[in-house]
Amino acid sequence: MPRYRMIVEYDGGPYVGWQRQDNGPSVQGAIEKAIFSASGDTVSVRGAGRTDSGVHAMGQVIHADLSKEWSPFKLQNALNAHLKLAGDKVAILDVETASEFFDARFSALRRHYLYRIISRRAPLALEAGKAWWVPKVLDHEVMHAAAQTLVGRHDFSTFRSAHCQANSPVRTLDRLDVTRNGELIEIRATAQSFLHNQIRSFAGTLKLAGEGKWTPEDVRAALEARDRKACGPVAPPDGLYFMQVDYPEVITDRRKPVDENDEGDDLS
Amino acid sequence: MPRYRMIVEYDGGPYVGWQRQDNGPSVQGAIEKAIFSASGDTVSVRGAGRTDSGVHAMGQVIHADLSKEWSPFKLQNALNAHLKLAGDKVAILDVETASEFFDARFSALRRHYLYRIISRRAPLALEAGKAWWVPKVLDHEVMHAAAQTLVGRHDFSTFRSAHCQANSPVRTLDRLDVTRNGELIEIRATAQSFLHNQIRSFAGTLKLAGEGKWTPEDVRAALEARDRKACGPVAPPDGLYFMQVDYPEVITDRRKPVDENDEGDDLS
Repeated sequence: MPRYRMIVEYDGGPYVGWQRQDNGPSVQGAIEKAIFSASGDTVSVRGAGRTDSGVHAMGQVIHADLSKEWSPFKLQNALNAHLKLAGDKVAILDVETASEFFDARFSALRRHYLYRIISRRAPLALEAGKAWWVPKVLDHEVMHAAAQTLVGRHDFSTFRSAHCQANSPVRTLDRLDVTRNGELIEIRATAQSFLHNQIRSFAGTLKLAGEGKWTPEDVRAALEARDRKACGPVAPPDGLYFMQVDYPEVITDRRKPVDENDEGDDLS
Repeated sequence: MPRYRMIVEYDGGPYVGWQRQDNGPSVQGAIEKAIFSASGDTVSVRGAGRTDSGVHAMGQVIHADLSKEWSPFKLQNALNAHLKLAGDKVAILDVETASEFFDARFSALRRHYLYRIISRRAPLALEAGKAWWVPKVLDHEVMHAAAQTLVGRHDFSTFRSAHCQANSPVRTLDRLDVTRNGELIEIRATAQSFLHNQIRSFAGTLKLAGEGKWTPEDVRAALEARDRKACGPVAPPDGLYFMQVDYPEVITDRRKPVDENDEGDDLS
């Protein structure tokens, strides 16, 4: 069975999330339907991250095993045609053949997310559903300073949803940068994997720092509390974008999924 | 009657265009309804440009006369609250009191538009309806060179919709710049006023230059033909954004609207 690796963009607004669920349309389901329409194959595709409802992607990575060989070019065009026909807000940006050892989830070395805040008085018209509207003045430099207290290897119990299924709350956060461009504030987060709601919990907490309610020291204290109750309010999904996944250049070996929930990205 | 000047953002997708019409919801109608809900005043608001259906705005400017004095801050919040309640994709970015001589349309010195093209193989998921999808490689430098043949004072009959009501096809185009940032190509146009479909006609024609079908000389020849039939296909409204309007710092005098269609911006 030839394996294909694909980069996927989607507007998370109309979906219950990445993962197939009974309560509504999922991105995974939309792609699996398109694969069936194009090839007749009934497959289960795996994504690098199981994004929540309303969370967007510019660079989700997936893999799928098909019953016959396709040229990547034709497969991409066929899937995009079927996705468009179905009215899905999902686009396949790239297709490559992949080694049988490649696993979109378990081969991932690093995941990159972006969280967008628009800080202005007026509600969002053009960007509705595509950013978090914060009608307050935010100091992005204070937010960035507060963010630096979170970088590194920590027990992130404070910034983890009660529904998080990961065995361990310990993660290594490689990067959490806050920058501003006019009314747009961007938070960029990188780690091998994240806990459920981790980035949205960061964003909600950093916003408190930005408006002067918390100091960077308060954010550090919240981390050290290792207690969900110490977290700021979780920011809405609208602002979150799954941007990119890094993989080893050559994958020669199937990495062992010791623990499904711990190794992979657990719903950001 | 105190006069207010407002800056307005909207997603043109759900509307028949700026102007009130019988066949569906308009941006003008949405704002007039919000003013009525907030103040009880039945007003007719005037916009600096009468954008077509599907055309967006980040900086449309309007004026409205209300029966009583409002603090700009309160008026903005009240209008935005009513627009949100009505489910409109319209936001009031700024409100100022204005001189009785200020006219959003006839006082305008210059109008700035942006046309966004996304040039890539895959259809648009996140930017659907917000840019023109062109699944071809475009040379933005050739597009820019071709655009320069259009700058200046010309008879723009070639780039004018058959429905254009302006008396004269002569306009002075101050700027038509084409730049690229990754897969995004931006065309920025500035003039005192534009003809109906002028910028979308430019965009459709420049795209032909970008894909190598037309040379910059062909674009110049199309301009010189002064014939609608010489124009490339008109680009879709999705990519067009009304960005900004410049006014004199002090408006001491009511400028005479010699000709409604000629002076103002005639639907881009």
